Amino acid sequence: MFTNAEPSGGPVRRGRGRRPADEVRAGVLRAAVELLTAEGLPAVTFDRVAAAAGSSKNTLYKWWPSAGALAAEAYFARSEAALRFPDTGDIETDLRTQLRSFVRLLTADEGGPVIRQLIGAAQMDPALWREFSRNYSRPRRELARAALERARARKQLREGFSLDIVVDQLWGACYHRLLIPDEPLTLAFADELVDNVLRGARADP
Amino acid sequence: MFTNAEPSGGPVRRGRGRRPADEVRAGVLRAAVELLTAEGLPAVTFDRVAAAAGSSKNTLYKWWPSAGALAAEAYFARSEAALRFPDTGDIETDLRTQLRSFVRLLTADEGGPVIRQLIGAAQMDPALWREFSRNYSRPRRELARAALERARARKQLREGFSLDIVVDQLWGACYHRLLIPDEPLTLAFADELVDNVLRGARADP
Repeated sequence: MFTNAEPSGGPVRRGRGRRPADEVRAGVLRAAVELLTAEGLPAVTFDRVAAAAGSSKNTLYKWWPSAGALAAEAYFARSEAALRFPDTGDIETDLRTQLRSFVRLLTADEGGPVIRQLIGAAQMDPALWREFSRNYSRPRRELARAALERARARKQLREGFSLDIVVDQLWGACYHRLLIPDEPLTLAFADELVDNVLRGARADP
Repeated sequence: MFTNAEPSGGPVRRGRGRRPADEVRAGVLRAAVELLTAEGLPAVTFDRVAAAAGSSKNTLYKWWPSAGALAAEAYFARSEAALRFPDTGDIETDLRTQLRSFVRLLTADEGGPVIRQLIGAAQMDPALWREFSRNYSRPRRELARAALERARARKQLREGFSLDIVVDQLWGACYHRLLIPDEPLTLAFADELVDNVLRGARADP
């Protein structure tokens, strides 16, 4: 709007209204994740993110259906590297490594509270839920299922049951202890989970 | 307060300010569960529950640390009967029956949304979380653990692993599909869970 009111051209036309969309988007995501980890999900409002990123609130409304959806995208863009799925050829090693990384993330000062808040808020914010599913839980389920399918092809897992169930029995069990914390979420729990699930899922020798 | 301003005694003294506490409490819980199932958790505010129950808001503040905690107590007081733990002497039958009842509750129009909202809100409301744990998740975990211990004593389950893990692998897996619904929560899923978990947990014949 200022650029329209200023007909003299030059630097004003290259002002903040004209930053490339990718750059604006990256700045918004950075500002959102900083607010999220410093102050928690309730601090991630379109007002505060726009102010911190020096962007217009209208842009944020155009790009994200809710502030929760923006928070989810910002968070998962950053945590992705910590949760790669290993592929050593041995499913027990890979599941143990991956589940331990997951438990470390969920019990970290930065990870646990944020994920609890995102899943919590998603129960009443369909846009946040879709973002969580699209950017995080569904791709992560697919990575796990692909690893389990490779293990079955190598005859490490028996036939005759849905591999998706293993995802719920491992990662679902960890989320259970995160969200309804009656019992502690520990690395020892992750190890015992893998033992117990594989005992039921392993192909007969 | 009206009773104090009215020195003539008689019926006024037996007015609504003097109802026995148990009766008031039951009325408040009834009003809360009606609001909760009709309109969802956001409708359960101290204002609206007090108005619906004809009670004073001060009483509600005195008895419950948050409106969410009140909603949780109200809901669980009502759903308890639907979730009794059977004891036929056969752990497979009992787990299957109980997990099917649980899935039916979570997928019912009335149960699923309310439980999702309670667990969701609990992630940012410590009083609601304590109420959820005290009145619901912890006693239910203990019932399941006791059933699993009886089965182990009958040599139906092997030694050498924590029975608590089975609770996370069965009920936790169902909560996972309720709260992060990338895959459907069905009775067939419950049956396959019990099969898979027992295959890993059963004592050798």
